[in-house]
Amino acid sequence: MTEPRTLTVALGERSYPIHIGAGLLEQGALLAPYIEHRRAAIITNATVAALYAERLERALAGAGVSCLRIEIPDGERYKDWATLDGVFGQLLKAQTDRHTTLVALGGGVVGDLAGFAAATYQRGVPFIQVPTTLLAQVDSSVGGKTAINHALGKNMIGAFHQPRAVIADLTTLDTLPPRELASGLAEVVKHGAIHDAAFFAWIEENAEALVSRRIDALEHAVLRSCEIKAAVVAEDEKESGARALLNFGHTFGHAIESGQGYGAWLHGEAISAGMVLAARLSAQLLGLPATDAARLQALLARLGLPVVPPSMPVSRWLEFMGRDKKNEGGSITLILLEQLGRARIEKRAPQRAIEALLAGPA
Amino acid sequence: MTEPRTLTVALGERSYPIHIGAGLLEQGALLAPYIEHRRAAIITNATVAALYAERLERALAGAGVSCLRIEIPDGERYKDWATLDGVFGQLLKAQTDRHTTLVALGGGVVGDLAGFAAATYQRGVPFIQVPTTLLAQVDSSVGGKTAINHALGKNMIGAFHQPRAVIADLTTLDTLPPRELASGLAEVVKHGAIHDAAFFAWIEENAEALVSRRIDALEHAVLRSCEIKAAVVAEDEKESGARALLNFGHTFGHAIESGQGYGAWLHGEAISAGMVLAARLSAQLLGLPATDAARLQALLARLGLPVVPPSMPVSRWLEFMGRDKKNEGGSITLILLEQLGRARIEKRAPQRAIEALLAGPA
Repeated sequence: MTEPRTLTVALGERSYPIHIGAGLLEQGALLAPYIEHRRAAIITNATVAALYAERLERALAGAGVSCLRIEIPDGERYKDWATLDGVFGQLLKAQTDRHTTLVALGGGVVGDLAGFAAATYQRGVPFIQVPTTLLAQVDSSVGGKTAINHALGKNMIGAFHQPRAVIADLTTLDTLPPRELASGLAEVVKHGAIHDAAFFAWIEENAEALVSRRIDALEHAVLRSCEIKAAVVAEDEKESGARALLNFGHTFGHAIESGQGYGAWLHGEAISAGMVLAARLSAQLLGLPATDAARLQALLARLGLPVVPPSMPVSRWLEFMGRDKKNEGGSITLILLEQLGRARIEKRAPQRAIEALLAGPA
Repeated sequence: MTEPRTLTVALGERSYPIHIGAGLLEQGALLAPYIEHRRAAIITNATVAALYAERLERALAGAGVSCLRIEIPDGERYKDWATLDGVFGQLLKAQTDRHTTLVALGGGVVGDLAGFAAATYQRGVPFIQVPTTLLAQVDSSVGGKTAINHALGKNMIGAFHQPRAVIADLTTLDTLPPRELASGLAEVVKHGAIHDAAFFAWIEENAEALVSRRIDALEHAVLRSCEIKAAVVAEDEKESGARALLNFGHTFGHAIESGQGYGAWLHGEAISAGMVLAARLSAQLLGLPATDAARLQALLARLGLPVVPPSMPVSRWLEFMGRDKKNEGGSITLILLEQLGRARIEKRAPQRAIEALLAGPA
């Protein structure tokens, strides 16, 4: 058991730490101080529960915290109201009060749904994030975005609700299926692409180490991703400006996820293909160097990620892209790259260029 | 058309005005400045829409604001997820973005549900309250509490989300059924009982004027109620302390509403019977003078409100009271009166006393 690496998401009164390290799940003394009244409800799914729930419960019990366990089905298509309503029902039946801390143990689906449960159960209860997938550790567990999906759009119903702490145990990545690992790496690449060309180059150099799960490489990837995300979130918690940059690849990506049915493409897979599309448009509209676009595509492919979007009618792309939360007054807002390491918000991308991109040969 | 009376809910960056007066619905120039991007979605019910929606839409259109209208069914039992999901569906189909202001036109059900829609649609959009019932004008539209009901408890799912403004048009009270008017008066009485003995005495003196809807009496009742509520909310926005005092009568009242089925008792009716129970317990436990308890009961009766609770098994009372959001660590928190005009939070009311009260002759 090593000392965790710790950084802070600086949000005034709502600031909180991110702890990153191997074996943190078992450190009751690290976890318990974030559970003020020593009562917790762990929200997890059956897959993660079988691997890690007892370990976490034992650590918390050892630190004097009592735990209720609530399991939800595994998969993006369950990130919906029906599942959330079931969580509320179990919390109410157990007469869980406002002073019980919800603990999200799992990947992005568990974290988003449990976070939204915490944002709205009895008008808000404390929660902590214990992300067990790379995607959740480098992205979704940090920054307080919580949500469920609506039949008409992904993450359309949600809230900003910051956790009290994020505990990223790197050993949980050992059990991750390769597709899920790659999905998380897509967001790691995104952080380099939008914000840090040196980090992008580091990922290029360490692609094989990451895919083979070398712990030092994973630690650096998680740490640097969290640093970048924490900096952006601290500057713009509720996405009135710069935070939208974290959405690079996501407008196209969300359309892929919604258009193909939740779960057919993993989030990171859709974001990967989405980033390739956004880079192509960036080359056309902002003069992103062709070498940069090529490096991005090559790196994603080396990490085992799809770089070709699925075939969908242009009208279907536009239908889903038209519902993106970044949009304003009926026109589509996109995040584009000026060069590797520098992104910008583009509110006036010509509709014609978008349509040609989506209609053209992939 | 007279000048509105205006007060402010002082919450720093989230401060907002309450405008109270006759004919405000028609004052586009008063309303429009709160709708920043000149796009609004009015959420209302069929009953209120038939009376007031066109008037409001005309006023907004005259001030350059475009409006989408969304109607929900009328009644507390529709303050649930199914209705909310329908609202989200209509907002998404119309590609309503984060810069559209939701306008809650109606009573407490519309305000609570539309407010929660605003708190969670695309992680939060602006909204304004246009309350058309006395209950909503004196209580639910002020303070940012939004919620829907869960099958296992009232207002269990919600958020704190402050409106940009509250516009209380007193002329809308003309069309209110007498039971609904009385229901609102229960909350007016509550404000006097917990905070202001002089206001309580004023209500006693003006009970007939209020029941017969004399506009000057209603204006004072709404204004003073909003002043009291605004002061309490400014001190404790998220109910970590003093705000709980506004819950006088509500622990018993919510149990009546849930136990009898939503809508069988109006909210204010249940609160009225709940306040009588709480006053009886206050006499026993805190020495509330018998004359004070008698004055409270007599005033509620003069206003046409029920003062005798429905007959329910004690176990059923306790089941619902055990789910109250104020509770902590398994024991029931109650708001009791020390005297008329002064309330306090009681976290350790003896279970035996509560059971005897509920079992005893009404």
